[in-house]
Amino acid sequence: MSKAVVLLSGGLDSAVTLYFAKQQGYDCHCLIFDYGQRHKKEISRAKKISAHLDCKAQVIKICLPWKGSSLLDKHADLPSLGYRGSIIPSTYVPGRNIIFLSFAVSCAEAIKAKAIFIGAHAQDYSGYPDCRPEFYRAFSRAAAEGTKAGANGKPVKIITPLINKNKAQIIKLGAKLGVPFHLTWSCYQGGISPCGVCDSCRFRAKGFKEAGINEGKSCRGL
Amino acid sequence: MSKAVVLLSGGLDSAVTLYFAKQQGYDCHCLIFDYGQRHKKEISRAKKISAHLDCKAQVIKICLPWKGSSLLDKHADLPSLGYRGSIIPSTYVPGRNIIFLSFAVSCAEAIKAKAIFIGAHAQDYSGYPDCRPEFYRAFSRAAAEGTKAGANGKPVKIITPLINKNKAQIIKLGAKLGVPFHLTWSCYQGGISPCGVCDSCRFRAKGFKEAGINEGKSCRGL
Repeated sequence: MSKAVVLLSGGLDSAVTLYFAKQQGYDCHCLIFDYGQRHKKEISRAKKISAHLDCKAQVIKICLPWKGSSLLDKHADLPSLGYRGSIIPSTYVPGRNIIFLSFAVSCAEAIKAKAIFIGAHAQDYSGYPDCRPEFYRAFSRAAAEGTKAGANGKPVKIITPLINKNKAQIIKLGAKLGVPFHLTWSCYQGGISPCGVCDSCRFRAKGFKEAGINEGKSCRGL
Repeated sequence: MSKAVVLLSGGLDSAVTLYFAKQQGYDCHCLIFDYGQRHKKEISRAKKISAHLDCKAQVIKICLPWKGSSLLDKHADLPSLGYRGSIIPSTYVPGRNIIFLSFAVSCAEAIKAKAIFIGAHAQDYSGYPDCRPEFYRAFSRAAAEGTKAGANGKPVKIITPLINKNKAQIIKLGAKLGVPFHLTWSCYQGGISPCGVCDSCRFRAKGFKEAGINEGKSCRGL
């Protein structure tokens, strides 16, 4: 059984990614990041999701003292337009996926994992530069050049199973895989229950509607 | 005055790199990593070196719970052959430079720095895969693809001024730049004074000898 490192945020996309990796037969090792995000609640949800699948999980605490994102500042306004276009939203965290992937590369090398899974997807990549397929291709190359595994001709694979899917398609895939949507957390605000207003809440609600799946109160991350 | 992020370990190479960046006219912002290395002493030396040049410095604490290196385990044997050839030594820390650079990319993006300096060099790259020029080229591409600055056509430059130099050449450059060698720390052991036996001590001593510079007791990092 091949090992895989899975980046698990506690959100919907990464949960679907974890279930997908597991279904592909990987022994999954989850990395959960505590990076000062205002929606810390996603961390406890990520732990629950990994436990639900009986997967090993490690919480990695990192500090980005230079901030530079509304996701790291609980007093900043959050975008709530429900669309992105080509504008990079204020919730973009400088270098976040580069950092997450670099820890995943380190972990994969140490535990001899053959693959890294990350749930970046199409709906994001017009806004977030670190969700674009070009970035993953370039990072894969860097990981191959900069690791022992790569130097030995066996670079770790970086797998983005959701990259070409929209939210509705991700939700449909998640439903097929039996993802416990009620455990996932999407809201960017740090509140007790989802705000229903921020972009992340809007994309989630729109996704369920378009997928024709009634999330229901028990599945809304409440 | 353009800003630059400089990765500063407290060792000789990164100190020379910082002085080089400063001489090039950059306003330098140093990142110092506390990553569980057995030679923690280098952290306090890095702080002293940055203070010596009156540069801003931030210590970033990270945890690599999967270990995978003799540099992260104070009970492990350290290599002391004084040469490397094509063997990747046990002191290689999986993904270390990838992680350091990813934080540097995040910092550079947030503080609007135009360049990142790292003191990787030729003597290392036969052993450490993350010191090879190919890795830096590939990582630069990933940073360009995955950041706002890159998306806006102004990717951060990753500069490796020592990449083609050997230790003696680095020391000669450092002497020209006025690097306070006595503040730098090279020994991999976590002792009070340098062991003189580990690879890092051997490379340092050999470098000073070949450069024709008498390091002297006050310059040996004691």
